[in-house]
Amino acid sequence: MRIGTDYYPEHWDEERWKTDLEMMHKCGIKVVRIGEFDWSLYEPEEGFYQFEWMDHILEVLQKYDMKVVLGTPSATPPKWMCDKYGDELYQKDKRGRVRPFGTRKHYCFNSDIYRNKVRDLVTRIAERYGRHPTIEGWQIDNELGWANTTRCYCENCQAKFQSYLRDKYKTIDQLNRTYGSVFWSETFNDFSQVIVPYEGACYAADPEGTQGQNPSLVLDFDRFSSDSVISFMNEQIDIIRRYSDYPVTTNMLDAGVNSGTGIDYFKLSKTLDFTAWDNYINFQWGIAEDAGVSRDHALVRSYKHKPFWVMEQQAAAIGWSKLGSVPEPGQLRLWTYSSFANGADTVMFFRWRSCLFGTEEYWNGILSHDGKTNRRFQEIGQTGVEIERLNQKLGKLMPVVKVAIMKSFDCEWSHKVHPHVEGFQYDQLLLDYYRAFYNLGIPVEFVSPDDDLSCYKLVIAPALIMVSDSQKTNLEQYIKNGGCLVLSFRSGIKTMENTMLPLTPPGIFEDMTGIKVDDYDPQYRKHTAVAGVFGSGVSSLWCDIITPQTAKTLGVYTEQYYSGKSCLTENAYGKGTVYYLGCDLNEEAMKRFAQYLCHRNGIRMLIGAQDGVEIVPVTDGVQQAVFVLNHNSHTIIVPVDGTCMELIKGEETSGQIELKPYDVAILQRKSSNSCNWTDMCD
Amino acid sequence: MRIGTDYYPEHWDEERWKTDLEMMHKCGIKVVRIGEFDWSLYEPEEGFYQFEWMDHILEVLQKYDMKVVLGTPSATPPKWMCDKYGDELYQKDKRGRVRPFGTRKHYCFNSDIYRNKVRDLVTRIAERYGRHPTIEGWQIDNELGWANTTRCYCENCQAKFQSYLRDKYKTIDQLNRTYGSVFWSETFNDFSQVIVPYEGACYAADPEGTQGQNPSLVLDFDRFSSDSVISFMNEQIDIIRRYSDYPVTTNMLDAGVNSGTGIDYFKLSKTLDFTAWDNYINFQWGIAEDAGVSRDHALVRSYKHKPFWVMEQQAAAIGWSKLGSVPEPGQLRLWTYSSFANGADTVMFFRWRSCLFGTEEYWNGILSHDGKTNRRFQEIGQTGVEIERLNQKLGKLMPVVKVAIMKSFDCEWSHKVHPHVEGFQYDQLLLDYYRAFYNLGIPVEFVSPDDDLSCYKLVIAPALIMVSDSQKTNLEQYIKNGGCLVLSFRSGIKTMENTMLPLTPPGIFEDMTGIKVDDYDPQYRKHTAVAGVFGSGVSSLWCDIITPQTAKTLGVYTEQYYSGKSCLTENAYGKGTVYYLGCDLNEEAMKRFAQYLCHRNGIRMLIGAQDGVEIVPVTDGVQQAVFVLNHNSHTIIVPVDGTCMELIKGEETSGQIELKPYDVAILQRKSSNSCNWTDMCD
Amino acid sequence: MRIGTDYYPEHWDEERWKTDLEMMHKCGIKVVRIGEFDWSLYEPEEGFYQFEWMDHILEVLQKYDMKVVLGTPSATPPKWMCDKYGDELYQKDKRGRVRPFGTRKHYCFNSDIYRNKVRDLVTRIAERYGRHPTIEGWQIDNELGWANTTRCYCENCQAKFQSYLRDKYKTIDQLNRTYGSVFWSETFNDFSQVIVPYEGACYAADPEGTQGQNPSLVLDFDRFSSDSVISFMNEQIDIIRRYSDYPVTTNMLDAGVNSGTGIDYFKLSKTLDFTAWDNYINFQWGIAEDAGVSRDHALVRSYKHKPFWVMEQQAAAIGWSKLGSVPEPGQLRLWTYSSFANGADTVMFFRWRSCLFGTEEYWNGILSHDGKTNRRFQEIGQTGVEIERLNQKLGKLMPVVKVAIMKSFDCEWSHKVHPHVEGFQYDQLLLDYYRAFYNLGIPVEFVSPDDDLSCYKLVIAPALIMVSDSQKTNLEQYIKNGGCLVLSFRSGIKTMENTMLPLTPPGIFEDMTGIKVDDYDPQYRKHTAVAGVFGSGVSSLWCDIITPQTAKTLGVYTEQYYSGKSCLTENAYGKGTVYYLGCDLNEEAMKRFAQYLCHRNGIRMLIGAQDGVEIVPVTDGVQQAVFVLNHNSHTIIVPVDGTCMELIKGEETSGQIELKPYDVAILQRKSSNSCNWTDMCD
Repeated sequence: MRIGTDYYPEHWDEERWKTDLEMMHKCGIKVVRIGEFDWSLYEPEEGFYQFEWMDHILEVLQKYDMKVVLGTPSATPPKWMCDKYGDELYQKDKRGRVRPFGTRKHYCFNSDIYRNKVRDLVTRIAERYGRHPTIEGWQIDNELGWANTTRCYCENCQAKFQSYLRDKYKTIDQLNRTYGSVFWSETFNDFSQVIVPYEGACYAADPEGTQGQNPSLVLDFDRFSSDSVISFMNEQIDIIRRYSDYPVTTNMLDAGVNSGTGIDYFKLSKTLDFTAWDNYINFQWGIAEDAGVSRDHALVRSYKHKPFWVMEQQAAAIGWSKLGSVPEPGQLRLWTYSSFANGADTVMFFRWRSCLFGTEEYWNGILSHDGKTNRRFQEIGQTGVEIERLNQKLGKLMPVVKVAIMKSFDCEWSHKVHPHVEGFQYDQLLLDYYRAFYNLGIPVEFVSPDDDLSCYKLVIAPALIMVSDSQKTNLEQYIKNGGCLVLSFRSGIKTMENTMLPLTPPGIFEDMTGIKVDDYDPQYRKHTAVAGVFGSGVSSLWCDIITPQTAKTLGVYTEQYYSGKSCLTENAYGKGTVYYLGCDLNEEAMKRFAQYLCHRNGIRMLIGAQDGVEIVPVTDGVQQAVFVLNHNSHTIIVPVDGTCMELIKGEETSGQIELKPYDVAILQRKSSNSCNWTDMCD
Repeated sequence: MRIGTDYYPEHWDEERWKTDLEMMHKCGIKVVRIGEFDWSLYEPEEGFYQFEWMDHILEVLQKYDMKVVLGTPSATPPKWMCDKYGDELYQKDKRGRVRPFGTRKHYCFNSDIYRNKVRDLVTRIAERYGRHPTIEGWQIDNELGWANTTRCYCENCQAKFQSYLRDKYKTIDQLNRTYGSVFWSETFNDFSQVIVPYEGACYAADPEGTQGQNPSLVLDFDRFSSDSVISFMNEQIDIIRRYSDYPVTTNMLDAGVNSGTGIDYFKLSKTLDFTAWDNYINFQWGIAEDAGVSRDHALVRSYKHKPFWVMEQQAAAIGWSKLGSVPEPGQLRLWTYSSFANGADTVMFFRWRSCLFGTEEYWNGILSHDGKTNRRFQEIGQTGVEIERLNQKLGKLMPVVKVAIMKSFDCEWSHKVHPHVEGFQYDQLLLDYYRAFYNLGIPVEFVSPDDDLSCYKLVIAPALIMVSDSQKTNLEQYIKNGGCLVLSFRSGIKTMENTMLPLTPPGIFEDMTGIKVDDYDPQYRKHTAVAGVFGSGVSSLWCDIITPQTAKTLGVYTEQYYSGKSCLTENAYGKGTVYYLGCDLNEEAMKRFAQYLCHRNGIRMLIGAQDGVEIVPVTDGVQQAVFVLNHNSHTIIVPVDGTCMELIKGEETSGQIELKPYDVAILQRKSSNSCNWTDMCD
Repeated sequence: MRIGTDYYPEHWDEERWKTDLEMMHKCGIKVVRIGEFDWSLYEPEEGFYQFEWMDHILEVLQKYDMKVVLGTPSATPPKWMCDKYGDELYQKDKRGRVRPFGTRKHYCFNSDIYRNKVRDLVTRIAERYGRHPTIEGWQIDNELGWANTTRCYCENCQAKFQSYLRDKYKTIDQLNRTYGSVFWSETFNDFSQVIVPYEGACYAADPEGTQGQNPSLVLDFDRFSSDSVISFMNEQIDIIRRYSDYPVTTNMLDAGVNSGTGIDYFKLSKTLDFTAWDNYINFQWGIAEDAGVSRDHALVRSYKHKPFWVMEQQAAAIGWSKLGSVPEPGQLRLWTYSSFANGADTVMFFRWRSCLFGTEEYWNGILSHDGKTNRRFQEIGQTGVEIERLNQKLGKLMPVVKVAIMKSFDCEWSHKVHPHVEGFQYDQLLLDYYRAFYNLGIPVEFVSPDDDLSCYKLVIAPALIMVSDSQKTNLEQYIKNGGCLVLSFRSGIKTMENTMLPLTPPGIFEDMTGIKVDDYDPQYRKHTAVAGVFGSGVSSLWCDIITPQTAKTLGVYTEQYYSGKSCLTENAYGKGTVYYLGCDLNEEAMKRFAQYLCHRNGIRMLIGAQDGVEIVPVTDGVQQAVFVLNHNSHTIIVPVDGTCMELIKGEETSGQIELKPYDVAILQRKSSNSCNWTDMCD
């Protein structure tokens, strides 16, 4: 457990640096991220480079024993470059509009000229600082894909997309057959005729969606765009690795209030040494629920199934033009411990001090504009002191997980193209399942369809609309060997090219689930009551009307013409079990379903859960402990099983523990057995 | 009564065709529509035509004794054509944005190059299949004007619009005088200066409206645009008629959830042999109310006052990216009988089987993706069996109508340019009147201001803001000869060029109505209570404060400063009567007003109406019968006057009849007198 | 007190003019505004001028003894000019889209060619009519800045903006340093690289705001744009003054339902002889609250602290495409007296008669389209008769003001760039304060930060986020000399270049207020209860958590973690007092705060205020009187202090006076002491 901050020495007079660094030390800050937007300082004119300013910053930081993550400044091409190369460099949006200079992210990932420029600069930076002793890591670019910039619709991207398709399909006939482009005479005679899925003639018919573009084309373009971003990043990583042994990461976007970036983070994470993300909770763009933040931590942890960083953590009331509410006393500390509990090993506060100018003048830091100590500084400082003590007792922490939710970016993108019914969102459905376990104090890992599943007692794969053959085999093996799989509506019915299989749902999962769905009712402006092992509840998105074949019924609809028909089934398959939940459920029923699943799979719920309390059993590979985090603005009493040590205060507690608003406890059983890393998924 | 389906053999392997056609026969399907999107199959490269594939399809269909409506594929110009001629071919929207390839309808109706291409292809198709024995009719293009494509703002349209205006006004002075272009210095010196009404400088002031463009210019452009579509269609009809004697139609868009297309359907229908439309009820773009569907049937029937087709009727849960709810058991049959009751003689289900690819992969057909029988197939099959039996007893059916509502496309467009008050919609006002009679079980015909009115006991002409001299004479003759006319607020105050008459409302109708309206109160964020022969009610759009001259008062306002002033009057004129309703009414009051009008005009209400029950008296020219259609999801009891035969079951019933959810009865008086077609408006 | 109307003789046949003018005389109309949109009549083709038509109009008006304000027609460049010079003449919006011909205001204020054309025409007009005896004044252009046209983003404006910045900053380094353009590598190497703040790459992140553009750049551009409009206007004024001694004005936009135009009206008013505005209350674009209309009058009066004109006052139900409600009997008269009470000396009704054509065919005038007398004509005529009698007793009226609210356009624009929190609007906050005094019957003057404040007992300066050194001195002097100043949250924390000061709020006002604010809570989706000298209330925008230094606490928060902390303080400073209200307040609490302030500053509340009653003490420099205006649709009883003359009816009243719906009384104390103009701010 370690804290740091995002620091911009170039925004302040040098006289202030000393004060800042001394204050950071008081606060327990061990590491800073710098430099990720500084292109115009490195290369103020084309081909004219200067590094002395950065040499000097690093020198000062080193003197103050401050570790550094150095960012590559590719998120902000300078004005001279845009003026000279804008035509080839700028992105175009879905409407064909240029995204010009004037904030950031104004570049196309596929621009040859921009890639050249980036290569040149990053090579120089890596060469110069690749072995600098105060540096300990690298960040590539900043928030790749931010503000819907993953998908660019420029002519250059169109040409590259055509090459991508030529590589994939070999012949245009193969593409036409695969896409079904006979539909609406959309047949292409040649790859050079293929379009990127910009807004077509009928944009008015579905303005928020894909405006009617061929869904196979759209999914291919989504994959191409994600690959373009990853390739852009990997090119920088390759350069850095040539000159540096320090680990490399990038800061991902996954806050509950942000939408997805359109990047396959599993794929992107392959070349990273560790993952990182930016954790904003209450700000201009919304307020994240606690379960959502936990879900985001879990995602970022799961991309490599390893400890990760929070590269930017909210430090104050923030926003670009409008602010969210101020974090109340205790919340900054709470959020920090929540990050650690969920597997972060470093938490960087964004930013050290509120900037006096620019777009983010109101994106407040630990210090306000006045640069003085304040209650946020005190609270973070207190946290810094506490974790130094805790680090003497505990090693790197990871939650103890036995449950996994499957996330497939192919499925996410397919569902975005055609989301089935008003209100359906794949990520939201995954969160619905996640929240059910979160509310029970049971950590959940996310897995890709390609991941080894053998270490999970329970795997939930909602709306798994498409899987490859090998992914299907992976699932089958898991169940045959005794695993427990939960599937849902809209599963197994599509090819990997986003066309429909000529099958009755759940399509390729018919055998596994032992059911057929030859009728379903999208819940358009309606709701349907259900009852089953989850008690009674209500579905408001989708109702598969299930005909069990070999499966047995665990839940039924209790209204509509399909009253009495199955909505939930259980099927024995190999040594394992497959559940199929044909509808969505309200929060309470979903929680009872999770309880049922845990009960059936021998997953123990450690402590009586309650509203607004996050409970996370963790391990450092040797010892186990349980974080109890009170997200409520009121005091709570949590029952304690036997006698525990509370590690933050170092006090013994038994029977129960009281937590003030936003307070945190870390409980350790006195007779805790040793355990090792593999316990994580035992 | 006959059912069919929209079929896309080109979307399936040929092996499947046999199965499909056998299943269609089981289902009672007699006719298919094919080929309306197949340009890239006919002409895969410029000038290279192939027809063998279609020869073969027709051959197979003929073998299975399946009748065919063949579509012309002009809705989907292929990619090679767009790439070569896009600049001249694509539409531009109000903002000057090109509507490019990527779905359908990506062509300008006035593009010379596109018209040439269409002429070439349609000539070849007509020549080849014009006398093919399995074909029985033609469909031109598909859903003309869909997705706001009627009005194109390209340079080419601007030039053609200038010619149109030169023909109409002869001199630019005449245009300037007519438009009042002295207002805001909008004077044109020459026809070449005239603009199409794109978004002007002040678009921000009225973003949803016409952004301040001259209302006369806008109306002329609306007429020009409608004429362009009609001319585009007629060019194809002319070609087909040269080679074929089969009747020609096109599928119109008028579902309650769709907005108007901007095409004058009365004018468009003149060259059609019969009308047809696409009937979608519960889908991505909304849920149509029963009265709205009935109104749509009535409109399409009224364009030629003849039986019509439903060319596409909803067969499942459907949508592009998101689905509506699934039709419940009984609804597909109910909707089919409702179509027949309202004058459809063929109902085509869209589509035979859900497509495995493309934009409409979720636009489900009778069969699902799996191609197997299902409950929808069974239900349509049952309907097919029933109608074969019914056809032995009944001929072509038309509702028996004595009431007409006047619809003027000139008025519709004028009201769209300047809709008077927030919430006012001409079509909605017409529906308010329609619904009142629908709720009483009284069929209503729509009439154009040019139609012969003599066969109606009652004509309602709401918001008839402009009429030509001959149209005015038509109305006068009707009343003078003893007719009964209902007029409303916003009538008689404009010229046909969309300028104001210098008259006190109701302007040219002052004599007829015997009233003056020298004050009115648009109901902007307010409501006003009223009372009269319609009981008590409330107006929420518009209140004309009427000063009766020769008229007598039948209703008054009961609040505001005009409390006690007339809102409804009756005036004797010639042998007839003119009512003037100066305000809108809530649904219940409007229904009581319709009852009053029926009572006063000797229009008999056949059976006690009730909520959600559609009652339609019909005739085949010889016999009469009454359809009773239960749109409710619960059982109803309907009183029966004397003893009747229920024709579907072939059972006798008296006193009352019970109808299950979504069930239908066709009642025939045992002693029914013979009658003939003219009875329709007797 | 005088009434007039906006007249368009060019819209009517000449035969009608005589009737119009005779009717105007009956109505008491003394003055008309004409000609402001007539460019295509003056110059129908390039360089071909004609004036005879205007000569003739003026001749007729003179014959009927009608005074004239003549408008310059620069709001509507004719089509021939747009066709020839459009590229240089049209505006571009934030998205780079041309604002083309097709309504009005389709020109860029910085277009050289357009300025030339305007100069040519205005010179000719001024030369010809500069001394015409029936003319009494000039109006420049029409509604400058209407429909978001103040800010143009064309290349020409960009070049002129670069010059403006070169003049201001001298070196690009100075600009970079000031803007903090090191942030996100936005450094410019040269003034020619500087952009106008169009929509940048990240527009999706903050679509309603400034999309992340540098706030200093945006504020400079706002100032530049305002200056461009003012310079455009002043060029015309200079020309007119060369040929004419008649006073010059322009009609401003400030109705409560209009947003700001982005023009610094204090600066614009400097060259005007008097100010004027357009007063629309209930129409397509909203319904103004009474306090809002009063606030607008106060603003326009305050720009020169002199009597002003209402150049357009609503005369009927109006709107472009949709109408608002009709003014009820009495409202036109009421609104007219309200204008006079607030300092208008001429009220012009827009327009004389409803136009028969064009965009504003539904923007009704005093007369309807039929041109006949009506109840609105009668009511205005009655008002005309009354004011002729009143003018014999009273001179030019101005409200008696002792309270001022400070309005700074720099602050307004800064707050628009980054509005702090969802829902915050500077103008709305000013209105909240204004309304509190309005509800007490206490007139309020607006002042700029540069105005002499010595004549006010109380000055309120809400959200005064930036002041120049001299403005700060102005405030200090005012307080030191015994003034009373109220400051609020978000004050004193920015430089004039829109960057943050490195200070603890309230920044430069720390000394004055005797407080520190080292924590604050933006009320994002929350509310906080408060209690103090304003009773109990609630804040829903912003809560400064105040630490008083020398100040004493007058109010506290009563919930959240800052319960018990100060929200309102009072500090002695020099001979004066400074209040600091750290939060917003609900209407009732704000009114009690105003009462408290009046009580403490010896400001007398004349008559017991009540809901919907506007009370305005006025003076003509000699006598005092009190307007009592009943905005309610019901009768009210107002207590009268002693015995008064009611001047409209000329009756004596004592104890109380009854006012019918929308009725007005002007009360004069029988023993009223003489007073003079300076009493206004005594």
